[in-house]
Amino acid sequence: MDAAPTVGELTPPDRTLMGPGPSDVHPRVLKAMSTPLVGHLDPSFIEIMDEVQNLLRYTFRTDNKWTIPVSGTGSAAMEAAIGNVVEPGDTMLVPTNGYFGDRMASMAERAGGEVVTVDAPWGQPLDPAAVEAAFDEHSPDVFGFVHAETSTGVLQPSVPELTDIAHANDALVIADSVTSLGGVELRVDEWGIDVAYSGPQKCLSCPPGASPLTLNDDAMDKVLSRESEARSWYLDISLLEGYWGDERAYHHTAPITNVYALREALRLVAKGIEERWDRHLRVAGALKAGVEGMGLEMNAPDDFWLPSLNTVRVPDGVDDGAVIQYLLDEYDLEIASGLGALEGDIWRIGCMGHSARRQNVSYLLAALGNALGEQGAAIDVDAGLAAMSERF
Amino acid sequence: MDAAPTVGELTPPDRTLMGPGPSDVHPRVLKAMSTPLVGHLDPSFIEIMDEVQNLLRYTFRTDNKWTIPVSGTGSAAMEAAIGNVVEPGDTMLVPTNGYFGDRMASMAERAGGEVVTVDAPWGQPLDPAAVEAAFDEHSPDVFGFVHAETSTGVLQPSVPELTDIAHANDALVIADSVTSLGGVELRVDEWGIDVAYSGPQKCLSCPPGASPLTLNDDAMDKVLSRESEARSWYLDISLLEGYWGDERAYHHTAPITNVYALREALRLVAKGIEERWDRHLRVAGALKAGVEGMGLEMNAPDDFWLPSLNTVRVPDGVDDGAVIQYLLDEYDLEIASGLGALEGDIWRIGCMGHSARRQNVSYLLAALGNALGEQGAAIDVDAGLAAMSERF
Repeated sequence: MDAAPTVGELTPPDRTLMGPGPSDVHPRVLKAMSTPLVGHLDPSFIEIMDEVQNLLRYTFRTDNKWTIPVSGTGSAAMEAAIGNVVEPGDTMLVPTNGYFGDRMASMAERAGGEVVTVDAPWGQPLDPAAVEAAFDEHSPDVFGFVHAETSTGVLQPSVPELTDIAHANDALVIADSVTSLGGVELRVDEWGIDVAYSGPQKCLSCPPGASPLTLNDDAMDKVLSRESEARSWYLDISLLEGYWGDERAYHHTAPITNVYALREALRLVAKGIEERWDRHLRVAGALKAGVEGMGLEMNAPDDFWLPSLNTVRVPDGVDDGAVIQYLLDEYDLEIASGLGALEGDIWRIGCMGHSARRQNVSYLLAALGNALGEQGAAIDVDAGLAAMSERF
Repeated sequence: MDAAPTVGELTPPDRTLMGPGPSDVHPRVLKAMSTPLVGHLDPSFIEIMDEVQNLLRYTFRTDNKWTIPVSGTGSAAMEAAIGNVVEPGDTMLVPTNGYFGDRMASMAERAGGEVVTVDAPWGQPLDPAAVEAAFDEHSPDVFGFVHAETSTGVLQPSVPELTDIAHANDALVIADSVTSLGGVELRVDEWGIDVAYSGPQKCLSCPPGASPLTLNDDAMDKVLSRESEARSWYLDISLLEGYWGDERAYHHTAPITNVYALREALRLVAKGIEERWDRHLRVAGALKAGVEGMGLEMNAPDDFWLPSLNTVRVPDGVDDGAVIQYLLDEYDLEIASGLGALEGDIWRIGCMGHSARRQNVSYLLAALGNALGEQGAAIDVDAGLAAMSERF
């Protein structure tokens, strides 16, 4: 690599992001990203850290002291949660009803834990009775579940029932709220969730890079009394506590700009989180009505429909990838294919944060209708658009 | 946390950053940060990934295929290097002549490795004879050294001698180039470095969040033939390879905006890396001349002076923290205190990337002179400024 490569100006296409994330970023958040930096130990940054922590508490609906952005994308916050709470010798119970339970399992095993599963079909939520049975059989120390499963578009209902079972068995509960935080009702304290993590690029509509994590005192007691150190230095919460806690000691250089952006994204949430949940319900409801009005079928059962991530079954004879490519090429519009067991069977259409707007939904439905028309699918675009606009 | 916290507009102070990082970010890089996002699997982003990888190869002076930005700050790239290359049962040799050798040790232990040390006083580089002796005694599998030690301001000379010793003993070499990449001569291939990692917020003048890492084929062979999985899922290079390599498979959502920024920062490097090294030498040389001309003493010996990070001894009777606070309060100027064993004894003054400019150095010297005057230190500011301007 002797000569310097010739690389031109940064001119990415102007996409409308309706996939499983990232979602469209609010202009105020983009603007915050170009703010000149202060140092990560600057007194003014300490103040910003406090503000972000308070805003995160509000968004998680928690009073947890240990509420921080982890310096990485959502999977970093996920690994911080699992890698610190699960100690070698612990047993973690994980779900098998979606893609992200497998990731939990892999992280728990790498942390030195044993993994047991509670089964449910892909596209269905966990049944509390099955969770109870798994507890009876395996006595796990930690129970992880996915509140909003991005691979299936399923929202886990009855969270307090699940946490009650875990607590009756002296286990800690870790909730994956990557695709729910800030878009779908989530109440960490009221629902008895011990640890929750999320990503910023979903319903918070913030560029990825600093990811929400919260732990209650029970979880932190376990983390701080581990017999062996966490296996990651970078994600060791007992060390991060030195920086985000009272001491403000140097651990690693925080991603300052990403923290700026998260602050701005959370200020938008702080306009009123319940209204924000309602907006997601309303706008995604119009999207769902439009999709169904066209004659397409949702993958997730109505009772467990996840507004922030809509899974739509690919009609017979239609090439899912060709539709995705057509939307990208002709409409600069991103949706995604199925993941894991549902690859080829569904499309995943996000409706998150700044993408959860009527502008985006009406554009998506019109474009999707045309893309399916190109594929010769027997759908009724007009009926879909009419069903959508009734909800607007 | 029922009520939404009241958090105002983001208005951090307008700092001049002359500490150990972050450095001042180039306006073009800040602007890139506010570019709207595309998806992390978008074809246009794949192209950007290729460009960033090529630019990183140019900057590292390497042809290594496995050259990527890790999704986190510099310590994430550090842990990706150590946590993947060191397997349980391996022995890693680390230095004791600065703060970051300890961090290497902690990461190697958490990876399941045994740690042995090669000693040198804080403020001195490693002596090849001592490295050779440590190899004879311990037969380590991996040898880590710090090319540019941010805690002491010492540049490790004679890198090829060190790598020759390691290779003669069939060990892999990991180089910490956090404070050298893009600012100080570093030639990964020519010098026989197997793995190098860095941070973006030092000599690359990019906000932290996506951090350079390169591995040659020998190192990747070891990583890909590990008996046990790496202990971090997030930083597992064999999985990252699926995303950054030919397959382009989803692993985690890349920090898109940080990759945009790194691309722009590296485009500035690609104007000519040797000129950039020269500029750092020249501008930091003026800083050093100015500091010494005032009557202050550098901590690092002249032969091992690190242009990007200048350590200055605190004169007797002067309160190091008061000077730092005065510069921050009166000049919006950041420098840093000593770290670890040198806390209280030195100041650390960065001269990196966009901060390695005459504007910054003349401002720093004038302000530092006034701050020391406030403290009643016997220094000759005019002589310092004259010595500086001779080098301009």
